[in-house]
Amino acid sequence: MEHTENQGNELKIEGRNAVIEAFRSGKPIDKVFLLDGCQDGPIKTIFREAKKYDTIINFVTKERLDQLSETGKHQGAIAYAAAYEYSEVSDMLALARERGEAPFLILLDGIEDPHNLGAIIRTANQAGAHGVIIPKRRAVGLTATVARTSAGALNYTPVAKVTNLVQTMEELKKEGLWFVCADMDGEVMYRQNLTGPIGLVIGNEGEGVSRLVKETCDFVTSIPMKGQIDSLNASVAAGVLAYEIVRQRMSAK
Amino acid sequence: MEHTENQGNELKIEGRNAVIEAFRSGKPIDKVFLLDGCQDGPIKTIFREAKKYDTIINFVTKERLDQLSETGKHQGAIAYAAAYEYSEVSDMLALARERGEAPFLILLDGIEDPHNLGAIIRTANQAGAHGVIIPKRRAVGLTATVARTSAGALNYTPVAKVTNLVQTMEELKKEGLWFVCADMDGEVMYRQNLTGPIGLVIGNEGEGVSRLVKETCDFVTSIPMKGQIDSLNASVAAGVLAYEIVRQRMSAK
Repeated sequence: MEHTENQGNELKIEGRNAVIEAFRSGKPIDKVFLLDGCQDGPIKTIFREAKKYDTIINFVTKERLDQLSETGKHQGAIAYAAAYEYSEVSDMLALARERGEAPFLILLDGIEDPHNLGAIIRTANQAGAHGVIIPKRRAVGLTATVARTSAGALNYTPVAKVTNLVQTMEELKKEGLWFVCADMDGEVMYRQNLTGPIGLVIGNEGEGVSRLVKETCDFVTSIPMKGQIDSLNASVAAGVLAYEIVRQRMSAK
Repeated sequence: MEHTENQGNELKIEGRNAVIEAFRSGKPIDKVFLLDGCQDGPIKTIFREAKKYDTIINFVTKERLDQLSETGKHQGAIAYAAAYEYSEVSDMLALARERGEAPFLILLDGIEDPHNLGAIIRTANQAGAHGVIIPKRRAVGLTATVARTSAGALNYTPVAKVTNLVQTMEELKKEGLWFVCADMDGEVMYRQNLTGPIGLVIGNEGEGVSRLVKETCDFVTSIPMKGQIDSLNASVAAGVLAYEIVRQRMSAK
């Protein structure tokens, strides 16, 4: 079956924690490749999980794992699962209702680096956001690197891919959401009310938020910048803003 | 002179913004390699800066740049400068005094990923921290990838390398600093007083803060985690914590 490994809709999950998380979240894993002779804890845990779910286990050499690896960081474990399915935006609103919370969505206006996308999905999960929305074009999708960098968050936090970000924002406004994006000319985030049903918009790594998307936002906010350079890393900026929303939500209760 | 390119203490700076920032900060650049025939704005800016400083300019093919590149992301521009010099911890305290601010240092207990180190130096610059302290062993140093990911911040924010993090912390305590590290069992950061002269300690990507370093900290604080996974990306966590310090410092004024 080796010839099918890089074909079709299979998704490679690389790295010990990512593989363990995938099992624990109940994701159907087709097969795992483990470093032969490796006896450490996480690898044994993966072995037990794979046994429990009747997953095919292959013990292979480091060379074989290196060859299979897309990220170069397999840490002795690679699993193959059905590719991550994109969710619908309506699923995110349903999740918010189910939790009895005001919707909190993160919209990414053209994130290109898979490490940034993975880190942002991880942040979205930990900040209690109900989903991440990405555009179909000029943006990275759910690759193996994204899955690995998300450290398992991709199993829990819905990600939707939409054709037109502005149109999706207009539709969500009808559902009562407000949109805020970050830019230099915005009001400092600590002084802005970020509670209520909210969509946080993060711009592209180099160019920031595009004009039409910015015009569709209800507020522009800014992170205080005390340094000599231009900006923060996109995933750090997303984290700082998402946690300002968390802080305000916690203190509003 | 090509044979010396990868030898000695020269540091490669890759990517347009990183090269422009290096010139603007006054860093001595030995030579630049630019993509031949490329006419866009940032490349022209680099050309003008290089002319101004009498820097040797080499117009080369994309293949040559790819070959010189360590990061794979040269964007048509690579510069060679003297390797970044590490600063002393005393320089950071002097910088704080000069600015009339209480010292704010970020200590990294074994960050291994150069992208995380670069992103944290970038965050330190924007959050107004006076320096970043890293240990000599089991941690990444100031490589070309770190310089590039810092987006120019390495030119402004001092980075010191110390033999023993715990000993440095003990010495800084005599200078009036308090130390806080992040861990699951800490008090939620929004409820903890993070003003005053402070050292923020960020742990290793996989293992968090080491036992001795944690014991040397005066407080343990925590980022609220509402998700199903373990932790945030290390550079995101550093950003969220650093900006909580910024918020408290701003509201304390």
